[in-house]
Amino acid sequence: MNELSTQRKVEFSDTDLGGIVHFSRFFVFMETAEDEFLRALGTSFVFTHEGRSGGWPKVEASCEYASAARYGDLLDVHLAVVKVTRSTLTYEITFRRGETLVARGRTVSVCCAARPGGGFESIPIPPAVAGRLQPAPG
Amino acid sequence: MNELSTQRKVEFSDTDLGGIVHFSRFFVFMETAEDEFLRALGTSFVFTHEGRSGGWPKVEASCEYASAARYGDLLDVHLAVVKVTRSTLTYEITFRRGETLVARGRTVSVCCAARPGGGFESIPIPPAVAGRLQPAPG
Amino acid sequence: MNELSTQRKVEFSDTDLGGIVHFSRFFVFMETAEDEFLRALGTSFVFTHEGRSGGWPKVEASCEYASAARYGDLLDVHLAVVKVTRSTLTYEITFRRGETLVARGRTVSVCCAARPGGGFESIPIPPAVAGRLQPAPG
Amino acid sequence: MNELSTQRKVEFSDTDLGGIVHFSRFFVFMETAEDEFLRALGTSFVFTHEGRSGGWPKVEASCEYASAARYGDLLDVHLAVVKVTRSTLTYEITFRRGETLVARGRTVSVCCAARPGGGFESIPIPPAVAGRLQPAPG
Repeated sequence: MNELSTQRKVEFSDTDLGGIVHFSRFFVFMETAEDEFLRALGTSFVFTHEGRSGGWPKVEASCEYASAARYGDLLDVHLAVVKVTRSTLTYEITFRRGETLVARGRTVSVCCAARPGGGFESIPIPPAVAGRLQPAPG
Repeated sequence: MNELSTQRKVEFSDTDLGGIVHFSRFFVFMETAEDEFLRALGTSFVFTHEGRSGGWPKVEASCEYASAARYGDLLDVHLAVVKVTRSTLTYEITFRRGETLVARGRTVSVCCAARPGGGFESIPIPPAVAGRLQPAPG
Repeated sequence: MNELSTQRKVEFSDTDLGGIVHFSRFFVFMETAEDEFLRALGTSFVFTHEGRSGGWPKVEASCEYASAARYGDLLDVHLAVVKVTRSTLTYEITFRRGETLVARGRTVSVCCAARPGGGFESIPIPPAVAGRLQPAPG
Repeated sequence: MNELSTQRKVEFSDTDLGGIVHFSRFFVFMETAEDEFLRALGTSFVFTHEGRSGGWPKVEASCEYASAARYGDLLDVHLAVVKVTRSTLTYEITFRRGETLVARGRTVSVCCAARPGGGFESIPIPPAVAGRLQPAPG
């Protein structure tokens, strides 16, 4: 598994006074698609690994905006894993309304676990998760 | 100490397509005033009490909207503690732009500490905090 | 028609460092339920009435928090119209996770149309909308 | 003028259950710095140009996260214009807490005016604004 298609309905509160979806909201939309993908892999943004609590904080996020999205739009969201390393997943997410490209984003999430002394450190993607990624991480 | 005056600049992202501040944002504005008040009392939304981590979750929140606020407005915010119980503080917060009343809200926060088994339980407001409230809690 | 049941999945970004849904997010959840209700009535937060653009700004909003909601929770949302006046609708919205009451809120929205000179003024709820409300407005 | 230094206090509501600032919030922080810069140039996200309403929608936004920011942090924000074209401004924004780099972002905003038939179209940056940019757009 390395991709997922879902949908997102634009809410009133997603918009700004320009009448369009605020650009920062697409990053939330991306994360929600990533969440759905992680759950399909059998995990989520909160997990336990070898007795430690884990998560997937972002180290990079970007978006290009091609066409405005508006209140009430039902966006088609497509997420694909475009790169896998020992500890990171890079996603590319596209948003379309019908045939129209609305936005195309990318996020990089790092698999982390809580450090005993506080804070987080990157860990290898757990085998149970990595094993479901296709193509499997090298 | 039982009140505080501060200001809040309305940001572009606070607005919605109606051209005004989204009603949910006033609850964030209220919380930020409460934060400033707690810091003036020597605490914050995150504290340690007898070795346990503590916080101030809300149990009630309300707001009446009198006049629209817009991008760029500098709002005068006034917070007053209107009720104190063993574990709760009730705040009344008003937002004005010049002489114009924009909104009037109220929140009730409960002083809590983490329960050993998980979750939170209400605790008495720590004496160091309660002692700075005027009038002192009964 | 005077009520609606829907669901809301708690997203990662709905939470705060306390590990629970930030209290302000429930107001967005309420609005989304209201949106769904308005669409079932054949309208939305954006409409045209006699050539003027219209909306439903809030004049009051409140919420009581009974139990924390967490990332991943699927909340059952029930919205009921509890009061109808010439220009306003009062909603009561409850959030439950299974049998557990999570929160209960109330919002009052005013039917408005753009004033020629700028700003908004309240208008009677359009007959096409009012006629679908049961019991009908007095 | 082509840069600006400001500060941003991290609010409780900026955080997520991971205990750190949600990655999407940095895009709001960037926009607020841009807003301050535009005002220093004598304009803002809302302006009138030759009788038409104008704005600065984003066409690109990205951020790299170097170190977590937390509730209560006072971030030093530095914005620099790194590219100017006929209609666009590219900003680079860095966030630091003391000596620690927290995040580095980039946004591209397009100067737009409302089209008579609806929607927006890019326009040359108004001379009154462009004239204050140093180095001046080529």
